[in-house]
Amino acid sequence: MSKLSPYNARHVLVENLDQGKWIQTRKINYQDPTGSDRVWEMAVRTTRTATTNVDAVSIVSVLHHPDRPKEIVLVKQYRPPTQKVVLELPAGLIDPKELIESTAERELLEETGYHGKFARQSIVTYSDPGLTNANMVLAYVDVDLSDVHNKLPQPQLEDGEFIETFTLPLNNLLAELEAVIQREGCTVDARLYHFAVGLDLAKQL
Amino acid sequence: MSKLSPYNARHVLVENLDQGKWIQTRKINYQDPTGSDRVWEMAVRTTRTATTNVDAVSIVSVLHHPDRPKEIVLVKQYRPPTQKVVLELPAGLIDPKELIESTAERELLEETGYHGKFARQSIVTYSDPGLTNANMVLAYVDVDLSDVHNKLPQPQLEDGEFIETFTLPLNNLLAELEAVIQREGCTVDARLYHFAVGLDLAKQL
Repeated sequence: MSKLSPYNARHVLVENLDQGKWIQTRKINYQDPTGSDRVWEMAVRTTRTATTNVDAVSIVSVLHHPDRPKEIVLVKQYRPPTQKVVLELPAGLIDPKELIESTAERELLEETGYHGKFARQSIVTYSDPGLTNANMVLAYVDVDLSDVHNKLPQPQLEDGEFIETFTLPLNNLLAELEAVIQREGCTVDARLYHFAVGLDLAKQL
Repeated sequence: MSKLSPYNARHVLVENLDQGKWIQTRKINYQDPTGSDRVWEMAVRTTRTATTNVDAVSIVSVLHHPDRPKEIVLVKQYRPPTQKVVLELPAGLIDPKELIESTAERELLEETGYHGKFARQSIVTYSDPGLTNANMVLAYVDVDLSDVHNKLPQPQLEDGEFIETFTLPLNNLLAELEAVIQREGCTVDARLYHFAVGLDLAKQL
């Protein structure tokens, strides 16, 4: 490891700049790999639970049907920070002491009405690591469309949630997402978009 | 469109809560689709340029070589908000009046030393739309490894940048990323991770 490796940076002191109800701004004093003192600002969600150390779970929920191509379950919701309706994977903040597994199945049912079965979860990843420590895991949840519970999915939205569910085929996800965005004038979560870009680029390998 | 469609939400008033040097916290007063007044907090980068209305560009840079599988150019850097070294796509904030195209080629050269050719750019996407209006575009930049300029790539890092470049094969990106994370105790940007998940899931279609 060279002297200037990014692994040689160190936190020194973190000061709270501002305490909103849901977001805190912090000033980080750290040493860069040369030992020089530097300053960075960050935004922090105040809702992270101590038990999981993870903010949120996003759900890759694939619909399995014997006669149809695989589809993925997506949601539309108005996101105030963007002033737009955003296309996203179903997701939710993790409740205190709740497991990723049950959070994923519960959020999928509440937001979309689909009864799914948790398969596995990803490592922890950071949504915008230059700006915030906000982090998340991906949960893979399979939905069996031949299950009687999934014939007429009924979302169970909480007060203040206005979420619309839709599905798109996995084998043409990028073009289909862009068509929805073009048609409806909405926008898209970067994580969902990168997932679609990966699916698309795989066709050229 | 139903009365409760997410498209029926409206911004009313945005108040500045706090002004850091690089991050501002804002309180958004908006109406939900039923017309009820609601409040949301958000974090805003203060660096966005008026000319592009986009914060950042991330670069999907594929190395083309006649005899080798396609590889993607990635970077490691210490990200103070996470207190960790993070694996990411090369990226940068867009300078005032700079085009996406030249930002992408310039950032790739500065961070990694590779001379690439801009091919195309994505639509604008939002990195964590429940928390912030921070947004980005993906730029696709091709790197020809048979070009003499790419024989010994030399990064041109600015003062305060400690970025290490590495490459991984596109056809096994998810497993290779997870191996680096396991081995080095670092973490990963959620957008890069979703891209790798898409590439991986495509194998099952």
